[in-house]
Amino acid sequence: MRETLAALEAGEIGVEEAESRLAGYATTDAGRFDAARERRRGIPEAILAEGKTPAEVAALATTALETTGRALVTRADEATAAAVASAVGDGDPDATVDRDDRTGSVVARAGDFEPPSLDAAVAVVAAGTADAPVAGEAAVVAREIGAAVDRVDDVGVANLDRILDQVDRIREADVVVVAAGREGALPTVVAGLVDAPVIALPVSTGYGVGGEGVAALQGALQSCSVLTTVNVDAGFVAGAQAGLIARAVDAVRAE
Amino acid sequence: MRETLAALEAGEIGVEEAESRLAGYATTDAGRFDAARERRRGIPEAILAEGKTPAEVAALATTALETTGRALVTRADEATAAAVASAVGDGDPDATVDRDDRTGSVVARAGDFEPPSLDAAVAVVAAGTADAPVAGEAAVVAREIGAAVDRVDDVGVANLDRILDQVDRIREADVVVVAAGREGALPTVVAGLVDAPVIALPVSTGYGVGGEGVAALQGALQSCSVLTTVNVDAGFVAGAQAGLIARAVDAVRAE
Amino acid sequence: MRETLAALEAGEIGVEEAESRLAGYATTDAGRFDAARERRRGIPEAILAEGKTPAEVAALATTALETTGRALVTRADEATAAAVASAVGDGDPDATVDRDDRTGSVVARAGDFEPPSLDAAVAVVAAGTADAPVAGEAAVVAREIGAAVDRVDDVGVANLDRILDQVDRIREADVVVVAAGREGALPTVVAGLVDAPVIALPVSTGYGVGGEGVAALQGALQSCSVLTTVNVDAGFVAGAQAGLIARAVDAVRAE
Amino acid sequence: MRETLAALEAGEIGVEEAESRLAGYATTDAGRFDAARERRRGIPEAILAEGKTPAEVAALATTALETTGRALVTRADEATAAAVASAVGDGDPDATVDRDDRTGSVVARAGDFEPPSLDAAVAVVAAGTADAPVAGEAAVVAREIGAAVDRVDDVGVANLDRILDQVDRIREADVVVVAAGREGALPTVVAGLVDAPVIALPVSTGYGVGGEGVAALQGALQSCSVLTTVNVDAGFVAGAQAGLIARAVDAVRAE
Amino acid sequence: MRETLAALEAGEIGVEEAESRLAGYATTDAGRFDAARERRRGIPEAILAEGKTPAEVAALATTALETTGRALVTRADEATAAAVASAVGDGDPDATVDRDDRTGSVVARAGDFEPPSLDAAVAVVAAGTADAPVAGEAAVVAREIGAAVDRVDDVGVANLDRILDQVDRIREADVVVVAAGREGALPTVVAGLVDAPVIALPVSTGYGVGGEGVAALQGALQSCSVLTTVNVDAGFVAGAQAGLIARAVDAVRAE
Amino acid sequence: MRETLAALEAGEIGVEEAESRLAGYATTDAGRFDAARERRRGIPEAILAEGKTPAEVAALATTALETTGRALVTRADEATAAAVASAVGDGDPDATVDRDDRTGSVVARAGDFEPPSLDAAVAVVAAGTADAPVAGEAAVVAREIGAAVDRVDDVGVANLDRILDQVDRIREADVVVVAAGREGALPTVVAGLVDAPVIALPVSTGYGVGGEGVAALQGALQSCSVLTTVNVDAGFVAGAQAGLIARAVDAVRAE
Amino acid sequence: MRETLAALEAGEIGVEEAESRLAGYATTDAGRFDAARERRRGIPEAILAEGKTPAEVAALATTALETTGRALVTRADEATAAAVASAVGDGDPDATVDRDDRTGSVVARAGDFEPPSLDAAVAVVAAGTADAPVAGEAAVVAREIGAAVDRVDDVGVANLDRILDQVDRIREADVVVVAAGREGALPTVVAGLVDAPVIALPVSTGYGVGGEGVAALQGALQSCSVLTTVNVDAGFVAGAQAGLIARAVDAVRAE
Amino acid sequence: MRETLAALEAGEIGVEEAESRLAGYATTDAGRFDAARERRRGIPEAILAEGKTPAEVAALATTALETTGRALVTRADEATAAAVASAVGDGDPDATVDRDDRTGSVVARAGDFEPPSLDAAVAVVAAGTADAPVAGEAAVVAREIGAAVDRVDDVGVANLDRILDQVDRIREADVVVVAAGREGALPTVVAGLVDAPVIALPVSTGYGVGGEGVAALQGALQSCSVLTTVNVDAGFVAGAQAGLIARAVDAVRAE
Repeated sequence: MRETLAALEAGEIGVEEAESRLAGYATTDAGRFDAARERRRGIPEAILAEGKTPAEVAALATTALETTGRALVTRADEATAAAVASAVGDGDPDATVDRDDRTGSVVARAGDFEPPSLDAAVAVVAAGTADAPVAGEAAVVAREIGAAVDRVDDVGVANLDRILDQVDRIREADVVVVAAGREGALPTVVAGLVDAPVIALPVSTGYGVGGEGVAALQGALQSCSVLTTVNVDAGFVAGAQAGLIARAVDAVRAE
Repeated sequence: MRETLAALEAGEIGVEEAESRLAGYATTDAGRFDAARERRRGIPEAILAEGKTPAEVAALATTALETTGRALVTRADEATAAAVASAVGDGDPDATVDRDDRTGSVVARAGDFEPPSLDAAVAVVAAGTADAPVAGEAAVVAREIGAAVDRVDDVGVANLDRILDQVDRIREADVVVVAAGREGALPTVVAGLVDAPVIALPVSTGYGVGGEGVAALQGALQSCSVLTTVNVDAGFVAGAQAGLIARAVDAVRAE
Repeated sequence: MRETLAALEAGEIGVEEAESRLAGYATTDAGRFDAARERRRGIPEAILAEGKTPAEVAALATTALETTGRALVTRADEATAAAVASAVGDGDPDATVDRDDRTGSVVARAGDFEPPSLDAAVAVVAAGTADAPVAGEAAVVAREIGAAVDRVDDVGVANLDRILDQVDRIREADVVVVAAGREGALPTVVAGLVDAPVIALPVSTGYGVGGEGVAALQGALQSCSVLTTVNVDAGFVAGAQAGLIARAVDAVRAE
Repeated sequence: MRETLAALEAGEIGVEEAESRLAGYATTDAGRFDAARERRRGIPEAILAEGKTPAEVAALATTALETTGRALVTRADEATAAAVASAVGDGDPDATVDRDDRTGSVVARAGDFEPPSLDAAVAVVAAGTADAPVAGEAAVVAREIGAAVDRVDDVGVANLDRILDQVDRIREADVVVVAAGREGALPTVVAGLVDAPVIALPVSTGYGVGGEGVAALQGALQSCSVLTTVNVDAGFVAGAQAGLIARAVDAVRAE
Repeated sequence: MRETLAALEAGEIGVEEAESRLAGYATTDAGRFDAARERRRGIPEAILAEGKTPAEVAALATTALETTGRALVTRADEATAAAVASAVGDGDPDATVDRDDRTGSVVARAGDFEPPSLDAAVAVVAAGTADAPVAGEAAVVAREIGAAVDRVDDVGVANLDRILDQVDRIREADVVVVAAGREGALPTVVAGLVDAPVIALPVSTGYGVGGEGVAALQGALQSCSVLTTVNVDAGFVAGAQAGLIARAVDAVRAE
Repeated sequence: MRETLAALEAGEIGVEEAESRLAGYATTDAGRFDAARERRRGIPEAILAEGKTPAEVAALATTALETTGRALVTRADEATAAAVASAVGDGDPDATVDRDDRTGSVVARAGDFEPPSLDAAVAVVAAGTADAPVAGEAAVVAREIGAAVDRVDDVGVANLDRILDQVDRIREADVVVVAAGREGALPTVVAGLVDAPVIALPVSTGYGVGGEGVAALQGALQSCSVLTTVNVDAGFVAGAQAGLIARAVDAVRAE
Repeated sequence: MRETLAALEAGEIGVEEAESRLAGYATTDAGRFDAARERRRGIPEAILAEGKTPAEVAALATTALETTGRALVTRADEATAAAVASAVGDGDPDATVDRDDRTGSVVARAGDFEPPSLDAAVAVVAAGTADAPVAGEAAVVAREIGAAVDRVDDVGVANLDRILDQVDRIREADVVVVAAGREGALPTVVAGLVDAPVIALPVSTGYGVGGEGVAALQGALQSCSVLTTVNVDAGFVAGAQAGLIARAVDAVRAE
Repeated sequence: MRETLAALEAGEIGVEEAESRLAGYATTDAGRFDAARERRRGIPEAILAEGKTPAEVAALATTALETTGRALVTRADEATAAAVASAVGDGDPDATVDRDDRTGSVVARAGDFEPPSLDAAVAVVAAGTADAPVAGEAAVVAREIGAAVDRVDDVGVANLDRILDQVDRIREADVVVVAAGREGALPTVVAGLVDAPVIALPVSTGYGVGGEGVAALQGALQSCSVLTTVNVDAGFVAGAQAGLIARAVDAVRAE
């Protein structure tokens, strides 16, 4: 700020220019949108396809691509994925569009988008097959932020040996996301087995009282192990937070 | 019934006697209180001491002793236990009164009360020290019904090896009660490790959302393992149900 | 373990063989998946048809059949039942597929599958016609585990004599499942009339506050009789727990 | 109204007098407080003693006595009852003050208060001893409205014969109040046994999920029998509604 | 009972005959189904059409008609009403089928069914047009029980004069049902204006927190006026209870 | 901002001075604490006495007095009021301390504090005596903001004529606060009778389901009249919002 | 009233005429529907199109138009808007029908309807695009009441500078409506930045626990800033209350 | 494992020694308690003083000290702190006991305990003074794990500039904990301003609906910013998770 004022005093810039620069300064000081911020954080712009038409999703994805170089569409059916691919291709022939069939996630990247690559690993652990799509959302986001992601599936606590068999593998990660529905015991068990920070990702399975992920979320909040949680089915948030932790670790590695 | 009617027809009994006997019959047929039932089921009369004065508890215990030969007082402090011992001793010098200091349970038995002994075992498993008093209630009830009770404490899932170390021991039981508060993951884990029926006993630990045992109860209702549950802190019910299963097993053993 | 180590010390086996044996030991010790366990417990693999296509259900049923010799599909419509029958027949011409029209349950068994038969009886009691399908799920599971199952329908407490008429019949069972929706008073009433363990099975009937089975579940949790409960509509769990109790009784009978 | 207007037109009364009379008329027409109404309905003024000092309760009771000839204090301890008796006696030496020790209800009546007497009967049924005080509140109110009240205690459904033994007696009432806590099955059972209207009175017993009367209230709302309900522990409301029904019956009898 | 026993003693009847008679006696004594009861109470058999096919409803209605002489179908669309009319007509050419277009209620009566007629009046009051169908259910049931029913519509409290205009009319009823959704203030206001017993009938209108009738039900439970309530949308229960009160009044009138 | 920059360019001020001024500007632009804001809004600093010692409250009040010229203590008992008076008098002999005995509110003002006076009126309406303290909080706050406040008490809807008698008086206010607990029908009724904006103030009366003000709050949210609401017992917020509306009206009057 | 009575006394009018006038008077006095009230308040008649057929909506709109000169249809799709336009045009060729495509609101006005115009401004602020339709409802209602409405969109707190950029603009309003879903932090932030009264309008976005606007509503109720709230998605109520406040301000401006 | 077996084969160790070593191995493989783990993770043993006597707390603290070298007592009053200091000093004269008066946290360390020191920073941000004690718990735990902790207090969103003033400071942290009660908007606002991972820590302030931290927790779960959360008042968990992230960062820095 002082620099700008000095320039003005020195007559190097005029009042309008100073006003414009200080507007930028003041607002940066106050938290104003920092165009570089999303780039620094590396979280892709996310679009939930459920409840939107393929055309609406395609339009949103195109805008995201143009402004951030990338778009993440979650829970997209084949028609939506096709609409996105077509719209994105029209705007940028070099753009790439990848769909993960298991999770319905679609990632579109501009031709000149350079995906980040972090020297940090995220393990995404899922209790059962019903938990895989939500876990997949977390994995895609973390990967787009640049983390190395290791998926560990079907390790529900009803057959405890399954998770015990995978402990060494999970221990190699810098941060762990654990997706589970029903009673949601897995995040607690995993957090008791590893040293890295664990993020619980409750999944909306189960019917009756405590169903739709409510028991799993409450189990995470009450866990006798140390862990934090996101809301039910919030795969995007869990993956993004894991990615932010991976970025923190990577930033240090890069020092 | 036919027997009574035949006796009446044969003149062996009069109308009044038949009426009296049939009253008994009809009501037995219809579910009327069967004085022998409590004896057959063997569930002790239970008195919750919390919220009652020592004198009130002592009076209730004395009545239970006189009508059923036995009384179980739960969550009794020392003053209450003393009042019960004194009142019971006044009424029946041969009566015995035992207090379990850890759980605050007091069992009083008439001098001529013959405790049942079943050829069946109940394992009562508790996750942490805070779960022990409620687990203790379950244990006392099951033992009074006559089961051999094995207490397994401090096997919470945050340190999974603790429960793994005790699996063989728990597998020896005919039925298993598992007490846990907080996130209540232990009943699900145990039910995945043993073949016997498992009864979850949620405990009112934990604060915040899902606290006071709510998360633990919902976890039992949503368990991905096969188990049934009782309400939060319902140690008496869990122990009594385990005792009834033990009795069923014993009845067969005794055939 | 000591045996294996002694054999190694004695030179009867080599290091690799010992390592392999101990791996087995350690993991058995730790709860690792015991291939024989499902066979011992006898609980059929269950597939909920609701929300899945006939093709998806058929594929899951085929896999279950191949790995466990049996599959239980619940809430299947006719098209799904037909798809299962066709898929199962393609893989194993000797397989059998039975559909219970009332409950929509489909049981498929491999040609060489030998269904268990236990010397123990389960009574499955239902309050009203709306409770029958869920009760039916419990009955099918208990029967597949090998129990002799007696269905007692339409004995809701609004006409108390209906249940009183059936008390003697219910008393013959080793364990009783009681399905009821709305206010769910029946499990409490039945548990007051029989000596065997009672499992409440709340059903998602009723609208307004406490509807969808919530009042029935809370009624079971608050029951002034001794009983345990499962979640709303959890017919599979109730039947499986009843089957496990029946197996415990049978195991003793078989001694 | 026409009468007053005619009197004004005829010069029999002036404008001010007419204005005054019409104010009365208009407001009566519109629901304005009808001094005779409380007398016609006969519901005593009720004062909840819990959370008030003896002096506060005494002051409120004195005012009620002066304006309505009667006061009903609920849940009063001995000190409060004494304070009421003293204050009432100071104001009106002929007043009477009666305390029901079991329920803690205190009824004070002015010396010239003529208690109503209806030719109609209310049965007040209670499941267990814990339900008696709340049931007692209902009984006192109904009795003060003038109904003949029959108390039927300790007829909980866990021992079904108890209620069956009392059915004939309950059937003699014109209206039935049924107080029950825990799972609250009794109102449903009673409504299935009698022809008269039944009012459920849930009681705040029970701990854990559904405790504090919540399960009992939901059970009443979901009842498969025809009945209406009041809120948990609302003994006053249940008794007053029963009294209003008794009054309706009596009014007809008196025709 | 004594009579039967005396006849047996006298040899007038044999043991088998006595056994049969006593079975009947015992069960009548105990509450066994009394074929005459439904007739005495006069509550029609009700069938909720929602969620059932026209054919299913028609079958249920036919059975109800055959066993009770009457059927009440609620929330029936035109196709369902037609199916009922056709099925009923096939079985009993003299049967009548009436549909209330506003509420979707269909009443079918056998040709020889003699509808009861009580000398007692029920007012059914509704706050808004959205409350009318549920109020209509209550009205139909009360009318079928035999009460004279007066419908008072569109008297919501947002325009207080509407209800004030109708107070005199409502005061003529022996019992009042008040249907209201949203905030449900109307039952409280009405109960403050009339002397007869008031039954609140909360209606599932309103969105957001407290929506679907929850606020209206809680308002009834918390009312500062004396009233009882039924569950949300339970028009049948409210009407049946009002009918039972009308019957009690009529029974006295008929003395 | 341009002004400051021009002054700098003109050499009228130096860089440091400009920096300092712009810091003020930037933060004012961004919402930085405006020392004059509280004065402009006129909302007194509030201190909830419940749960604090008299000394703690006195200290907080003294600080508030020093920084804002005024303090409002709510729910203060006599000891707390005395402590506040003593502490305030020590610091500022000219300060005044007034206690409203009915509501327990204490207002302390510095000797040089000039209370605002608005040309706008707030009516504060309360249903029953239990609602008066919370209504009193609202009244005190609105009065301190400078509004003319009219208290209207004991106009609950159970006796509708009470509120009808006061309608003309309430209609004179520019904004109306309506405090009611239990079923909370009064705000809806009042909003149907007046043209001014109505703010509902639910009060934590009532026990059982919907008690503690929950039904009253939901009734406000579901009201069929136009009104906004504050949380249960939030008398301060209701009074402050009414004061802000009065200020808006006054500001215009003052134009 | 006195006037009418004097006229009667003077013989200027007869009893019937006086009776008729006084009926009007009495009821006006008591709150009876004042035909001029809706005109004075200026709130348009609102019809929620969701869940109604185009024909039903058109019929309701026509009636509203005829009785109040105006109709507001919310959440109307194109077909419904067309049906309304057609029906309105049939009845009144001079009527106008405007549809706001973004919110789906349709405003129909009779040819002779003179829309009010207030000298007062309402700011309607929305956090994100998902909040715009509900905010739009509020804006339409406020505008129809006559307020000058300023829409401020996309100022969610996740990018704080967006709202900071718009503070000056929002500060120009006399009253502010703030629509936000998810965590609903925006109303609290805005109320901390402006002096005018703020009305929170929670929006039903968000899934999982606290979703569907529940967290946003609770956030408004718990706000540490001064504000009042309406129910989730109650755009009509928020806009109408803002309009009433604007009218109060305008009324003073017009003095 | 192979090493041990080879040693046994070679006769270097006996069967018992091998058995002992393998027990260690097997259990380590399976997750068995690793004595070194707590040391690696560095989370201190925590004891909640609330609800325990000073003597009980002192005993627990002594045990923790002996087994882990350190104890953290939370919410301790002065008497408890003194009891801990005395007991710890008795056992280990070189031990140190520090109490944080603001939060009531007591940290006891054995004389030979070497506290960890991480090259990573945690910011602990609190909205208001009521949030400080819970934030303090988080700070103490993070500091004990070895992180550099920066406390930022009194930055609630009602005065947005307070948080804006501190943004640069908060941005220096590697991970941020944000404690807030009431509506809990602060974590969302902070997570929109910084790049580091944010952990929400809801605090149990606020009364009425959404009070006791429920609104704050739901706000965190619904946040439109990326963040994870812990349960209400779970300062220990938030601080421990922040510490684990700091450790991950430090581990990399140390590479």
